[in-house]
Amino acid sequence: MVATPQGWFADTAKSVTIQISMKPESYQGSELYKIRHTAAHLLAMAALEYDPEVKLAIGPPIETGFYYDFQFTKPLTDEALRTFEKTISRLIKQDLPVVQKFVPRKEALAKAKNAGQQFKLELMNDLPDTELSHYGIGEFWDLCKGPHVKRTGEVTAVKLLNIAGAYWRGSENNPMLTRIYGTAFKTKKELDTYLAQLEEAKKRDHKKLGPALDLFLFSELVGSGLPLWTPRGTVMRELLDGFVWQLRREKGYEKVEIPHITKKDLYETSGHWEKFKDDLFVIETREGHQLAMKPMNCPHHSQIFKRRKWSYRDLPQRYANTTMVYRDEQSGELAGLSRVRSITQDDAHIFCRPDQVVKELSDTWDIVEAFYGQFGFKLAVRLSFHDPNTPEKYLGSPEMWQQSEAALTAMAKKRSKDFFIAPGEANFYGPKIDFMAEDSLGRSWQVATIQLDVNLPKRFELTFVNDQGHDEEVVMIHAAIMGSIERFMSILIEHFAGDFPAWLAPVQVVLLPISEKYIEYARTVADKLTEAGIRFELDDSNESLGKRIRQAETQKIPFILVVGAKEEEDKTVSVRERGTPEQAVESLDQFTERDALRR
Amino acid sequence: MVATPQGWFADTAKSVTIQISMKPESYQGSELYKIRHTAAHLLAMAALEYDPEVKLAIGPPIETGFYYDFQFTKPLTDEALRTFEKTISRLIKQDLPVVQKFVPRKEALAKAKNAGQQFKLELMNDLPDTELSHYGIGEFWDLCKGPHVKRTGEVTAVKLLNIAGAYWRGSENNPMLTRIYGTAFKTKKELDTYLAQLEEAKKRDHKKLGPALDLFLFSELVGSGLPLWTPRGTVMRELLDGFVWQLRREKGYEKVEIPHITKKDLYETSGHWEKFKDDLFVIETREGHQLAMKPMNCPHHSQIFKRRKWSYRDLPQRYANTTMVYRDEQSGELAGLSRVRSITQDDAHIFCRPDQVVKELSDTWDIVEAFYGQFGFKLAVRLSFHDPNTPEKYLGSPEMWQQSEAALTAMAKKRSKDFFIAPGEANFYGPKIDFMAEDSLGRSWQVATIQLDVNLPKRFELTFVNDQGHDEEVVMIHAAIMGSIERFMSILIEHFAGDFPAWLAPVQVVLLPISEKYIEYARTVADKLTEAGIRFELDDSNESLGKRIRQAETQKIPFILVVGAKEEEDKTVSVRERGTPEQAVESLDQFTERDALRR
Repeated sequence: MVATPQGWFADTAKSVTIQISMKPESYQGSELYKIRHTAAHLLAMAALEYDPEVKLAIGPPIETGFYYDFQFTKPLTDEALRTFEKTISRLIKQDLPVVQKFVPRKEALAKAKNAGQQFKLELMNDLPDTELSHYGIGEFWDLCKGPHVKRTGEVTAVKLLNIAGAYWRGSENNPMLTRIYGTAFKTKKELDTYLAQLEEAKKRDHKKLGPALDLFLFSELVGSGLPLWTPRGTVMRELLDGFVWQLRREKGYEKVEIPHITKKDLYETSGHWEKFKDDLFVIETREGHQLAMKPMNCPHHSQIFKRRKWSYRDLPQRYANTTMVYRDEQSGELAGLSRVRSITQDDAHIFCRPDQVVKELSDTWDIVEAFYGQFGFKLAVRLSFHDPNTPEKYLGSPEMWQQSEAALTAMAKKRSKDFFIAPGEANFYGPKIDFMAEDSLGRSWQVATIQLDVNLPKRFELTFVNDQGHDEEVVMIHAAIMGSIERFMSILIEHFAGDFPAWLAPVQVVLLPISEKYIEYARTVADKLTEAGIRFELDDSNESLGKRIRQAETQKIPFILVVGAKEEEDKTVSVRERGTPEQAVESLDQFTERDALRR
Repeated sequence: MVATPQGWFADTAKSVTIQISMKPESYQGSELYKIRHTAAHLLAMAALEYDPEVKLAIGPPIETGFYYDFQFTKPLTDEALRTFEKTISRLIKQDLPVVQKFVPRKEALAKAKNAGQQFKLELMNDLPDTELSHYGIGEFWDLCKGPHVKRTGEVTAVKLLNIAGAYWRGSENNPMLTRIYGTAFKTKKELDTYLAQLEEAKKRDHKKLGPALDLFLFSELVGSGLPLWTPRGTVMRELLDGFVWQLRREKGYEKVEIPHITKKDLYETSGHWEKFKDDLFVIETREGHQLAMKPMNCPHHSQIFKRRKWSYRDLPQRYANTTMVYRDEQSGELAGLSRVRSITQDDAHIFCRPDQVVKELSDTWDIVEAFYGQFGFKLAVRLSFHDPNTPEKYLGSPEMWQQSEAALTAMAKKRSKDFFIAPGEANFYGPKIDFMAEDSLGRSWQVATIQLDVNLPKRFELTFVNDQGHDEEVVMIHAAIMGSIERFMSILIEHFAGDFPAWLAPVQVVLLPISEKYIEYARTVADKLTEAGIRFELDDSNESLGKRIRQAETQKIPFILVVGAKEEEDKTVSVRERGTPEQAVESLDQFTERDALRR
């Protein structure tokens, strides 16, 4: 039995790096991959030209470009990256051939030793081969398995991005190296598009924009990875969660509630204790018992299901539960809301008969589409299936796999213009449907997943009495919509650059009396807004109207209502809608009935 | 600085034993207290008569009666308690004098040793006195400080209740003793009332009724003190919490959200780490840091308040947050929902200027009254004030105490017919208002508290810029309404004996088609109920109508709607309301508009 942590730990909650409109399996070994790999070698050459004594570590392509880790013997000037870029440009213009050579082990080791390249030496010592693959450009040979482009001229568009620290081999006990990140594309145009996107993404960075819009904060005393939610952020969380709940209620879900801890016995039965105890926050009680904080909700929910004997007529049981889960993430892995230690999951588990699976999956897919459609995300779908060449890796009968995968494929064909099948990506306990949302910057994020599970029902003996009067195992479906509310909020903040649709904006309206004289009328308007259930703030401070308008704009409030003599007389409000230059004068009823204020 | 755990740990969440319409401070040393104390001695005499070799431990009066711990040398028969009661009756009839005597230490030790009373010996060894107080009835002398009644004839009404195990001195390492519980009253009538109440309370026991009504469960694998909430229980929790939130929103509260853990630094600053670390669930991370699960929310909320600089114009800030807190309670202390390890608090903290305190307290009092009034609880109020004789025990200026206590007293006089002042019961950091709710059995439960706090603002440096432009400390008000939703649910289940008002019942309506022929019409009715937002279940199983009605009655569903030929023809429903023998025939609109279905 092989389980991926994602499978157990509902991978929707994990952070996913940006993909540039590319299905992950097609990147490795692709033309772009080779360009970036060669670009990394060119960077190493530039570094050697700058500092002939520099120690080279590793320089792989990554999803968004490449990096190389160095130990420099002289300090990097502010201009170093630009200098390196110039060297790289020259090497590209020279259009040098990129050549593979197999060097006998002994010779390679001797050369690395002579050159004082101790990191390369360490890498070589870990390789079992008698001949070690190297790639050469001009005089520079680097230990490398490839693949690369044929000539440096193919590396047309390169940009070095930033410098960071990274431990050799990722361990705190090793020396800190200098990591230089860069990216490369086939064309200058693609590079420019990416750089513009990066620039835009920086402006939209939820780590800055979130606190600036007063949505969340981190506290030194509480600790990293543990966000605290302000009133405004909490309003948004509740609106999002309420939206998911509305969609679920229509499909017959019921809410349940569970504690955040459990005896370890629960995870010994489920199998999590053995496999994932390092990721769990473990507690020792005063009486010496071991408890764990829950990193997922399925085992708890299974206990609620198990409270009574179910008939086939009672199924499905659908339990929804928005609740925080906790994972002992390493400090270095934490990033704003994208990766946190306290993760709010909008989790749900369906316990159903085998003949109900397809209908339930389809209903859940409806929810995912309705939810993400609301925000203008385009959804791509990955069907993560089993690998038919390694049936021994999977639980459940071949018929179960065949039938469920056929049903999923038929469903996907009917529903999605943009789906693909990924064999071998299934959980060992069942196939899954993964949804990827494309945001307004063209970035793709893995969001919802729906997972079939025949394992937990077995481990917890979750059964129903079938129409023949016999006990039969239920099928369990894991189905989170946002996955992690924290991560979804980070995506949403950047997707909208903080300009949330008015129904979702924590403050929908700012109400500004032109001067003190109109505060009373402003209060009348305020009462009307309260009555209509609109979230507003009345700003009657002594600041000038212009300043108050600018403040509201900075806070990205969708509507600014200004009231003065004319408005008081006519019982109207002057409406400035975010993003539209004109002002409209409307009656109170007209304004409060605007569709934009409600989902 | 002296802090009570209650003060820090928002004592609303602690379990409170039953009080028989008596203010706690008047019980100790009272006539009733003496009667029960003497009754405990009579029980010891009866035990000695039954088993002359019995070892006596301790026998104190408690709030609801008394107990005595014994180590018997022969087994207790089923009839033992009745036999003891007979002996006690005889001793009461004999109207023996109860006499105090001071026995020289040496003599007392020798006597206990000769009699083989090792527990008494141990108790004596711990006493510093040179003469040891004993009380005697007839031949029986017991180590005891009193007080007692003068003659056994004053102990008129005694009843032995049950037998339990109890470790000598409460420690698992000591021998297990037999504890016999009893109670006594001044009159037979009072005893009978109490016994009837006890009988009724047993029937209403939430530990049985809760699972029977499918509201919550405990799982062996998850562990004790960690309730799991079923769909029905979760509906009730959400209705209750929604009710509190509605009341709070009207008073200008905002919701916030926080993680359940924190670095210990937060509690080092707040002072909790030093004082209460034994009650905390502590976590050691993979990186070797110490975290704690939160046992209260105030320090987290203080960090949210502290995120920006506040002007006097911005206050009060009122943060509400329904969230679970965790306490490492000892297994022996756990009891159903009354005392759990995962406690859902409907917590709130107000950060305000000193001149806003009275208004905020009064607003919170409004909420408490509106909430408890809805369920028919009578509220008594205790003003827990400082002890003016020990000013050194308290933080804050004498003026602060004088002014705030005067304001509280004035407020209480105006608002409550049933309040009393308890000097010395304040927290060291401020006075508080404690509310006691009397339930339908006449039992009194401590429920909401409102606490003033000048300490945390000091420790966390929580300030605002006052109208003079200077930094000034805010006052913090802790204000939970239900306190612990778990404990409140236990009170509510027993208060209503499961017959919840229809607005709160998890299932408001059961819909019963007389036979298969009327299922279609039942579905039409069901659609109408869904549309009206009524929580219902359609029971179209093959059981007889009578059986389905009885099932709905057992589940204490407020309304049973029966539909057959007549109803289908007339587009009506036959309504059986819980507790009323007559059936009413109503149109669908008539029924769905019934006031009882909504709060």
